[in-house]
Amino acid sequence: MSDTINLLQNQIRQLHDNRLFEFSVIAIILLSALLIGVKTYDFDPIFINTLAFFDVAITIFFLLEISLRFIACNNKKRFFHNAWNIFDTIIVTVSLLPFDESEFAFLARLIRVFRVLRLISVIPELRVLVNALIKSLPSMAYVLLLMFILFYMYAAVGSFLFENINPVLWGDISISMLTLFRVVTFEDWTDIMYETMHVYPLSWMYYLSFIFFNAFVFLNMMIGIVIGKMQEEGDLELATEHAAEVKDTHDLLQEISHRLDSIEKKIK
Amino acid sequence: MSDTINLLQNQIRQLHDNRLFEFSVIAIILLSALLIGVKTYDFDPIFINTLAFFDVAITIFFLLEISLRFIACNNKKRFFHNAWNIFDTIIVTVSLLPFDESEFAFLARLIRVFRVLRLISVIPELRVLVNALIKSLPSMAYVLLLMFILFYMYAAVGSFLFENINPVLWGDISISMLTLFRVVTFEDWTDIMYETMHVYPLSWMYYLSFIFFNAFVFLNMMIGIVIGKMQEEGDLELATEHAAEVKDTHDLLQEISHRLDSIEKKIK
Amino acid sequence: MSDTINLLQNQIRQLHDNRLFEFSVIAIILLSALLIGVKTYDFDPIFINTLAFFDVAITIFFLLEISLRFIACNNKKRFFHNAWNIFDTIIVTVSLLPFDESEFAFLARLIRVFRVLRLISVIPELRVLVNALIKSLPSMAYVLLLMFILFYMYAAVGSFLFENINPVLWGDISISMLTLFRVVTFEDWTDIMYETMHVYPLSWMYYLSFIFFNAFVFLNMMIGIVIGKMQEEGDLELATEHAAEVKDTHDLLQEISHRLDSIEKKIK
Amino acid sequence: MSDTINLLQNQIRQLHDNRLFEFSVIAIILLSALLIGVKTYDFDPIFINTLAFFDVAITIFFLLEISLRFIACNNKKRFFHNAWNIFDTIIVTVSLLPFDESEFAFLARLIRVFRVLRLISVIPELRVLVNALIKSLPSMAYVLLLMFILFYMYAAVGSFLFENINPVLWGDISISMLTLFRVVTFEDWTDIMYETMHVYPLSWMYYLSFIFFNAFVFLNMMIGIVIGKMQEEGDLELATEHAAEVKDTHDLLQEISHRLDSIEKKIK
Repeated sequence: MSDTINLLQNQIRQLHDNRLFEFSVIAIILLSALLIGVKTYDFDPIFINTLAFFDVAITIFFLLEISLRFIACNNKKRFFHNAWNIFDTIIVTVSLLPFDESEFAFLARLIRVFRVLRLISVIPELRVLVNALIKSLPSMAYVLLLMFILFYMYAAVGSFLFENINPVLWGDISISMLTLFRVVTFEDWTDIMYETMHVYPLSWMYYLSFIFFNAFVFLNMMIGIVIGKMQEEGDLELATEHAAEVKDTHDLLQEISHRLDSIEKKIK
Repeated sequence: MSDTINLLQNQIRQLHDNRLFEFSVIAIILLSALLIGVKTYDFDPIFINTLAFFDVAITIFFLLEISLRFIACNNKKRFFHNAWNIFDTIIVTVSLLPFDESEFAFLARLIRVFRVLRLISVIPELRVLVNALIKSLPSMAYVLLLMFILFYMYAAVGSFLFENINPVLWGDISISMLTLFRVVTFEDWTDIMYETMHVYPLSWMYYLSFIFFNAFVFLNMMIGIVIGKMQEEGDLELATEHAAEVKDTHDLLQEISHRLDSIEKKIK
Repeated sequence: MSDTINLLQNQIRQLHDNRLFEFSVIAIILLSALLIGVKTYDFDPIFINTLAFFDVAITIFFLLEISLRFIACNNKKRFFHNAWNIFDTIIVTVSLLPFDESEFAFLARLIRVFRVLRLISVIPELRVLVNALIKSLPSMAYVLLLMFILFYMYAAVGSFLFENINPVLWGDISISMLTLFRVVTFEDWTDIMYETMHVYPLSWMYYLSFIFFNAFVFLNMMIGIVIGKMQEEGDLELATEHAAEVKDTHDLLQEISHRLDSIEKKIK
Repeated sequence: MSDTINLLQNQIRQLHDNRLFEFSVIAIILLSALLIGVKTYDFDPIFINTLAFFDVAITIFFLLEISLRFIACNNKKRFFHNAWNIFDTIIVTVSLLPFDESEFAFLARLIRVFRVLRLISVIPELRVLVNALIKSLPSMAYVLLLMFILFYMYAAVGSFLFENINPVLWGDISISMLTLFRVVTFEDWTDIMYETMHVYPLSWMYYLSFIFFNAFVFLNMMIGIVIGKMQEEGDLELATEHAAEVKDTHDLLQEISHRLDSIEKKIK
């Protein structure tokens, strides 16, 4: 039985790696995704039905592919250690759920929407991109924490000083943090500033210092991450390419050393 | 005949590479371009006519230059394999089309406008820049696709939740995506948010998470592209400069090794 | 007595370095910080009291930790040469101040707020981040000075030309600088520009040149800092890793040279 | 006489390089600059007079310093080949012009303003910064030209399509380019877009493509400049540091080669 599975798996893999097939799958997923978005427009029902047929076909193809990958995997436990396998399984399973749009309209629509995520499974370049994004999360988490501390402290001071001027914007710390985020995005921030400057003429220092601190922390974060990644990659490169050169030189030197050894012995 | 062509071609190339000539061509193209823009102002008709004369002269010069380049090319088919040759040919051809402004006003104006593209043909630095831009397109395409997925999913959720609050902004997925792009550009995004927060007080999480995700993906894309290009260039540099040095050292070491060999033999 | 201190210190350090303990401390600090922010919401008083208890416990833990660090330090003077020790001492001292919220409401609230800074003491990654930020301050200071000169000169010209158009925005140089900062953040900058363009139709040159100069200086600053940091780190790396390799090769070559020396002498 | 000049010059240079003196000069220039800005506030006249006195003293100091530098310069013609010398001379000369504020109020105020530029002369770090800025100008010029072409073409199309919708924003190409710059800064750009979308529902493609093209060109420019500068600096570094190492290795190898030469001769 293992043979038939292997054969089927090879054929599916060949189909999977086929450039033309890959493009058709991407096109159909994108089209069926866009269709939900523009369903208010009038399309030819034949076109929509054809697309729906291919959409079901792709779901079945994905189901087959992941089933075979699971059956072919020797260590069933290890299969679910790979995050991408779990991701694929969830998407395929959810795609199969037979929700009737009339009953659970919200869930049915959400599932339709999340089917776009199959694109990430299909396109290897997107997997690489998402992997890189997940890897850079930890180094960003600490910067976000530092920014949270900055926001929190300014929000506390702001809600204390400006609460009576405009309680809608500075009512409590959580609302003040939202207002400060608005200031950071420069969205009508001068209106907020001019309002408080009528009571505290020096309150522009509060806003400008906040904007500067944030820009400063953000900029340094970006630079830090760029340099961090660069060294990482650079070190890896050094460890492979350069090491080979150094080894070459050392091999030659060792050879020379051995020759000298034998010359010395002969002279004695 | 080939000789006269070569001679003419050399002279045109010399004229083409002449720094002063290049600057005059750039100045006239820019001036005639600006002239369309500010034609509502009153200029001396002599100045405008002189400029028009030089504009025609440049068109003829371009026509001559590309014709000679084509004639001098041994393999006529290969001439159109170079994207820049096609680009030049199209621009020159279009510049020659005798549209009367009264009849096809729209086309005539568009063609006048596209004549500015001759600048890219004239200035080698701009060609290099455009080449670099085109090369970086593929690495950006996947990031844009990832962002499209992000936009699409948020737009689907947004149009579902906020449709009844403001159908102008959240009527269907395509309109919601435009609204989300507006949120990403921070253009009056707080007005949109405050509106939905009246119904769903926690909807700020929707907007903030979307802004964060986009900033995060965009930032990582930029960093990724910078590092990618750097390694590319860095590897190339290593492959030429450094490799030469390493080869030098190895050659010298090998020579020493051979000498020791001969010394060993002589001692025997 | 020194032994008991060492023992206690070791146990506290072990507790400090314990991953689970660290996470609980961070969680409690964040929760007690957030609690101030959202105190208008209704929480279970048991939850609030439990959190308050743990908050006091953390303060005591910090007090113990810094006391032991101070006692264990051989050179008491040197203890305060470390900026982080001073920082920790101030935060712990301030956390202990027994302000009653009814009397000094402002101070009590501020101190509660600044307790969030304990996060920086607790999380080593944040210390590293803050250290890096402080290090990059000097290289940014000169750019800010250059930008100040730019702002100052434009503000002087602006307040002179536009004072009669809108004294609220261009009344004196200090107000003009604030208006220019608003222009740089693109906050309703076109309203400011259109207003002055009614009197001086060419005043768009004033705004556009200012935006360009600032973007140009800012961009170059960023690039300069990135490159500066990179070379710094790169040089350090070269000075350690690469230098070792080069030294290895040289040692081997020198050894060969010495051997040849002795061979030469023996042949004589 | 040359001796007295040298002596005086040395003393002025010593004063110039004195850290405390440098800081006082910077402080006084900044204070006198700020004074113009906030002259509407009421300061103690004694403070203002003291500051005015020091301001005159600094002008005289600058005059002395540049005179001595000029006298000490052997080749008078070469003195003005250095751009910084010309810059210093102009600023000192202009500072000395005896404009009465009542007669040429505009000029007098402008000159007062431009005196802040002396800061660049005084602080060496600012000179380095300005030098770096000037150096990066050419590589930016071509990108700006490319962006101009982009703006020009979109403005031509925009003024043709949208002229009848809103002549204030799309009246001719020059006004359209200003409107497009406003779109690029995201300043109320959706208002402009919604207005044209009433007539051309697909005009969002015009705005979004323009924003994307600009972001794309800008991003690539930044990356290009960063990489360009990095390689420049990296090559320089290689040319000094690395070259020394390579030379060291080659010297050793040559020495070994010479030794082998002499051994070979002795064996013969």
